[in-house]
Amino acid sequence: MKIAIPRETALRETRVAATPETVKKYVAMGHAVAVQSGAGVASAIPDTAYAEAGASIAADYAATVDGADVVFKVRAPSAEELPALKDGAAVIALCDPYRNPLLADYAARKLDVYAMELVPRTTRAQAMDVLSSQANIAGYKAVLLAAEYYPRFFPMMMTAAGTVKPARVLILGAGVAGLQAIATAKRLGAVVEAFDVRPVAKEQVESLGGKFVEVPLNEEEKKQAETAGGYAREMSDDYKQRQAALVDKHARNADIVITTALIPGRPAPVLIKPETVAGMKYGAVLVDLAVENGGNCPLSRLNEVVTTDNGVKLVGYGNLAGLVAADASALYARNLLNFAGLILDKEKGYVVNREDDIVAASLVTHAGDVLFGKG
Amino acid sequence: MKIAIPRETALRETRVAATPETVKKYVAMGHAVAVQSGAGVASAIPDTAYAEAGASIAADYAATVDGADVVFKVRAPSAEELPALKDGAAVIALCDPYRNPLLADYAARKLDVYAMELVPRTTRAQAMDVLSSQANIAGYKAVLLAAEYYPRFFPMMMTAAGTVKPARVLILGAGVAGLQAIATAKRLGAVVEAFDVRPVAKEQVESLGGKFVEVPLNEEEKKQAETAGGYAREMSDDYKQRQAALVDKHARNADIVITTALIPGRPAPVLIKPETVAGMKYGAVLVDLAVENGGNCPLSRLNEVVTTDNGVKLVGYGNLAGLVAADASALYARNLLNFAGLILDKEKGYVVNREDDIVAASLVTHAGDVLFGKG
Repeated sequence: MKIAIPRETALRETRVAATPETVKKYVAMGHAVAVQSGAGVASAIPDTAYAEAGASIAADYAATVDGADVVFKVRAPSAEELPALKDGAAVIALCDPYRNPLLADYAARKLDVYAMELVPRTTRAQAMDVLSSQANIAGYKAVLLAAEYYPRFFPMMMTAAGTVKPARVLILGAGVAGLQAIATAKRLGAVVEAFDVRPVAKEQVESLGGKFVEVPLNEEEKKQAETAGGYAREMSDDYKQRQAALVDKHARNADIVITTALIPGRPAPVLIKPETVAGMKYGAVLVDLAVENGGNCPLSRLNEVVTTDNGVKLVGYGNLAGLVAADASALYARNLLNFAGLILDKEKGYVVNREDDIVAASLVTHAGDVLFGKG
Repeated sequence: MKIAIPRETALRETRVAATPETVKKYVAMGHAVAVQSGAGVASAIPDTAYAEAGASIAADYAATVDGADVVFKVRAPSAEELPALKDGAAVIALCDPYRNPLLADYAARKLDVYAMELVPRTTRAQAMDVLSSQANIAGYKAVLLAAEYYPRFFPMMMTAAGTVKPARVLILGAGVAGLQAIATAKRLGAVVEAFDVRPVAKEQVESLGGKFVEVPLNEEEKKQAETAGGYAREMSDDYKQRQAALVDKHARNADIVITTALIPGRPAPVLIKPETVAGMKYGAVLVDLAVENGGNCPLSRLNEVVTTDNGVKLVGYGNLAGLVAADASALYARNLLNFAGLILDKEKGYVVNREDDIVAASLVTHAGDVLFGKG
């Protein structure tokens, strides 16, 4: 069976869907692997490393995917990338299913497209959980970006010229990205506070040395606060008002604010209002990890660093994981390798087992139908 | 007495020679302080903060220094900045005395120019040691820059998608910058090795959790290795060969190399040869803190990031302390405040006490004479 690893074409996409480590494993299983020349360069993987792992290097996209049964990608195929794919091929990628306008085109080509974002967040699926692996990296990079734009030290420094205070970091949302941001900011010596609507986050925040900022909840809210899938859900207006006042107060005292709140399939919640930014310190930095989904701060701009009139820097880079390209690719490629175990059979080759809950959740087009949203 | 704080005009100079904290102290001593509008903006200090501390805000450079007895600056006056200064004024700044072509011009204006780089590295002078305070920041920033360009995590990560190895960092030169780089890289979770020609550095490196890379020394070399002033001195050709072989070997195994070796008044020593860079890992990063003095690697380019054919990134930013502008200014301003105690007398105002060893060492022009190099 032929597996193809194209070079990504999306703007600012530095990742690649296989590494020499995973190529070696596919080859050991008996598959032929074609890697497009240059596919790994932005992830610090030269063609020679893939060749040494047993891949053939294809000169261009068409030659890479020509006759391939399975195509591993980072981003879903663009309209330009569709014609060269074999009829009925399987494509595994981050498909942005809620916003992808091409699902019907994938179906028309009878492709089996798997959206890795839809892999359920269950114990069995952990090793395939690309949202977690990439959010982990994004949380790390968010702190490094904050340190890049923050004009002071993170750690406290005691020097002959006097003492420098540690940075005060506020992290909104203590999911995978938020927890890694807490850990990284603590490593660098900052004083860290974190906020999350899920009361269960308190213990995790505190175990990393962060201080948990709590909105007092009533009994009904406590019950509602946890939802399936590990995501935060939307809360009542009254709760939101109390939350907003608390976040506003802590953001004004912070040197750095990192926001990580996402709701799948919906615009990101606004956590930092323009009034709050106006009250923040001169020289403070806000890194908005939700900027690709509208932003947790409405003043953030995608792939820009905005400096406000009161000297606050709003850092709005998208695809933060892609800024740590080599490890982002390494973990993403391992996620795909683990996922491949569900769809690649030693005897039968590529199989579609829709009884498997992970396959069922992630398969968005099959046999000419768009399955996503029909669940 | 009037003290002036001009806005810096040198390219990429973000620092300022006084902060609201130090302005308040000068004002409390009875001095009038004029700050040029915008002087602190790049250090996250708005004019209003200086005004609140008691300074008057002057619209331009000429108005700032008009009639000033003492001018605190970051960089030595340029030819354009000389005419507006009062005859015989004192100017305290980083003067780059070994390379500054304007010393005779300063003398012709009868200025008392003090080069803060020449403050001796004695216990009494520690609180005025701008080289240390700025090198400390440069060492911190060097690690953050390395993390910015390195495509992998610094810390080891154990994730559901497998384990990621920690970055291996090699630091050449364990002076103030090197030691802070070791500390910061360790904080971020890297495995750190460091090298210095001074055997005494071993204990300091190890106390920060780094591994000391040792060139075996003969008895004569051991005696020579320590010099006055705390700087490394030049060693024999035989020693240099053993050192070069050892550095080459460790650099090839490193993910990140940070070089910090400087010799005052001379070009920086070459520690990383082009052959070594050619043998480094694809994706490795070299940050050359000596780039303004010719570089510890001849392939580094000032204020550029060079990517070699074998995928090594050579990061050559100058003035790294200026990239952490607010704290760099805070510490520099405190250094100057402490130095001011030597030249500002409560009764007599500005005084030149050439009996004082710190004054004597740092005064480069006085009463029409160039003193520097005549010692």
